[in-house]
Amino acid sequence: MTQSWVKGANRPDCDFSLGNLPYGVFEANGNTPRCGIAIGDMILDLSELVFAGKLVAENCGFDRPALNTFMAAGPNTWEAVRNRVTELLAENGSTDLRDDAALCHRALVPQSSAQMHLPIEVKGYTDFYAGRQHAFNSGSILRGPENALPPNWSHMPIGYNGRASTVVVSGTPVRRPLGQTLPPGGDSPVIGPSRRLDIEVEFGAIVGISTELGQTLTLAEAWEHLFGFVLLNDWSARDIQRWEGQPLGPFQSKAFATSISPWVVTRAALEACRRSAPARDKALLPYLHETAPYFFDITLEAHLKPADADRASRIVQCNTTQLTYSAPQLLAHHALCGCRMQTGDLLGSGTISGPERHNFGCLMEQSWGGRDEIALEHGGSRKFLEDGDSVTLTGWGMANGNRIGFGRCEGQILPAHAEVGKGA
Amino acid sequence: MTQSWVKGANRPDCDFSLGNLPYGVFEANGNTPRCGIAIGDMILDLSELVFAGKLVAENCGFDRPALNTFMAAGPNTWEAVRNRVTELLAENGSTDLRDDAALCHRALVPQSSAQMHLPIEVKGYTDFYAGRQHAFNSGSILRGPENALPPNWSHMPIGYNGRASTVVVSGTPVRRPLGQTLPPGGDSPVIGPSRRLDIEVEFGAIVGISTELGQTLTLAEAWEHLFGFVLLNDWSARDIQRWEGQPLGPFQSKAFATSISPWVVTRAALEACRRSAPARDKALLPYLHETAPYFFDITLEAHLKPADADRASRIVQCNTTQLTYSAPQLLAHHALCGCRMQTGDLLGSGTISGPERHNFGCLMEQSWGGRDEIALEHGGSRKFLEDGDSVTLTGWGMANGNRIGFGRCEGQILPAHAEVGKGA
Repeated sequence: MTQSWVKGANRPDCDFSLGNLPYGVFEANGNTPRCGIAIGDMILDLSELVFAGKLVAENCGFDRPALNTFMAAGPNTWEAVRNRVTELLAENGSTDLRDDAALCHRALVPQSSAQMHLPIEVKGYTDFYAGRQHAFNSGSILRGPENALPPNWSHMPIGYNGRASTVVVSGTPVRRPLGQTLPPGGDSPVIGPSRRLDIEVEFGAIVGISTELGQTLTLAEAWEHLFGFVLLNDWSARDIQRWEGQPLGPFQSKAFATSISPWVVTRAALEACRRSAPARDKALLPYLHETAPYFFDITLEAHLKPADADRASRIVQCNTTQLTYSAPQLLAHHALCGCRMQTGDLLGSGTISGPERHNFGCLMEQSWGGRDEIALEHGGSRKFLEDGDSVTLTGWGMANGNRIGFGRCEGQILPAHAEVGKGA
Repeated sequence: MTQSWVKGANRPDCDFSLGNLPYGVFEANGNTPRCGIAIGDMILDLSELVFAGKLVAENCGFDRPALNTFMAAGPNTWEAVRNRVTELLAENGSTDLRDDAALCHRALVPQSSAQMHLPIEVKGYTDFYAGRQHAFNSGSILRGPENALPPNWSHMPIGYNGRASTVVVSGTPVRRPLGQTLPPGGDSPVIGPSRRLDIEVEFGAIVGISTELGQTLTLAEAWEHLFGFVLLNDWSARDIQRWEGQPLGPFQSKAFATSISPWVVTRAALEACRRSAPARDKALLPYLHETAPYFFDITLEAHLKPADADRASRIVQCNTTQLTYSAPQLLAHHALCGCRMQTGDLLGSGTISGPERHNFGCLMEQSWGGRDEIALEHGGSRKFLEDGDSVTLTGWGMANGNRIGFGRCEGQILPAHAEVGKGA
């Protein structure tokens, strides 16, 4: 059952093949925002299916503007809904939807006519630092290659709490932040717009099942608690980060916006993309030791389109196999102290960088701390982002010849406010 | 109108005088948790007052298990409710409640028969580092006195995002966390229970009014956005913190529990406790420059009671005047980048330490990094917390001879789980 009867689903370049079935929250036809599944060029309105009696989905909350209720329902429910929707959308499956023209009209909404919302209510947002090449590059730029990796880095996924309130859905404009920075050679900071605005190409994991305060998780349990994955752009102001970042880590430099893709791709969809852990130079402590393939082979790209350009230039190509810690390792480590994990927690991988410069997942690495200009393939160059620039992340894995894609995660840079005290 | 007819309210040692009127969420008499005000030995049930027609409070949500709806209603509503409740509870005020015995029976609940809940739905939790003596002591222990204060410290309130999901109300037991630590002299970490469990005596500010993404706040606006204040104990695992803390700041070492007092004391109650900023060695940038007294004179204490002790020993006495950055400065800095601030955000001051050892607000400082034993006044000694220890924070300001108190913020240490994968 790999072909679907829905328009566009079998195109080789379509992100939303029948094997994918990612979840999102959409608004269309004057209805309130609700949960849907992307298939081909369309969105399947799950509320309409339930209302029509074609999908049994108790306590799934598909009529709500976030996936949290469905995520909290757990893996058996996730599997049942996926199986039934696969059956309804498959070329050789059930005719319950396909042959009901009126229901098709109500329940299949063109993506082009829908507005996407944040797919989840983001409860906590934690950002990690789980890619070795990025950690090495960043550390080399700041401290030199001999001190690049902190001593703890090879023993655990280093992370910090991000700001959940400013996680936004793809398409939301990103206002260039004001902040304190230290001018080169100066000893007192100034306030003004960030001059070193950057992207970070990341892979985001979403926690489906909560834990109690004090509860810890094995890796196998952590895997089961994960609902799905999104593209994540952790917009960063490098000059603000440089001045504020020690001793307590990034704060204002990361708190102005974090963009995620509108579609959450599930673990089940990525089953064929699973890969084993990379070779490690040090053995991990038992709670982080993998006995199953918890990594994924997903290609990620970033394209940059200047305001005055006709075409976007590809600036990054990397792959989630270039991460050193897997999503269940992030979650198991996060819960180790007994931290209560919540349905809707978002765990960012940290920037994903591969071996070559065009594989580096942020401009700071590609420009080597602002030293080098990065030539854009369709003209112009950048060290960091300029006002009006649009950045779009895409990502996909392959499963039995079908593309399991994440859609787009994009944002355009708006100029900074002129002064403090101005509105949004 | 400084005397109340409610039992206990006029006792000199009562935290909850008529001038205070702090808000909390309580459960009693088999009813669902709801909003109330502490007065003397009692809790005034605001839902019952509204139901009885004695308090006009539209869109205040006093029947809900969190103050967020009321906080979002804004300063005019806060003032109107405070004025009416003052009138109802004053010795020489309205008789609408006092002379209605049946309503008094329903609407005045003994604190001794109520269970307190978290007063707010905590949206974001951000912890700062806003006390100079603490920053100097911590830096001295880690890096020596000549490098104690980071260069950014005198220019802005340094902060980091904490973990909102593990903010708990006073009385919630605190499970000793598991974590990675580096044994002294070792080069590989081990996993096990923290051996350096600590408190941090802090003052918490609660955001009442939200901002939009991209919006910034002047100090005067930030002041207006604040709803009230709580006691806050930022439990910390120093050995985990030492190993994980660089380069991205504290994470698991702080994510297992943060306790707050059940009562939120409002800005209005603390009006007489306002104080001007301390002398500064460097001028602040304009967005942080105070033109009004935004500090408070509030005495804070911590008592420690070992499991086998009859009495608690006072271990800390400090004062919020020992902070260097005020609550509106924390909030204005937080919003500077355009970070969306939310009703229910909690901003911790960071540890408050005064000049003498008994004024230091955490055990790491008092034991100087675990070097010295801290003698307890009623016998025994500590460097860090032991299983079974209970720690209680108290705090109060004085307004026209009346005590404006915060109640108690306490927690008892439970032993760590034996291994990873165990439940709560």
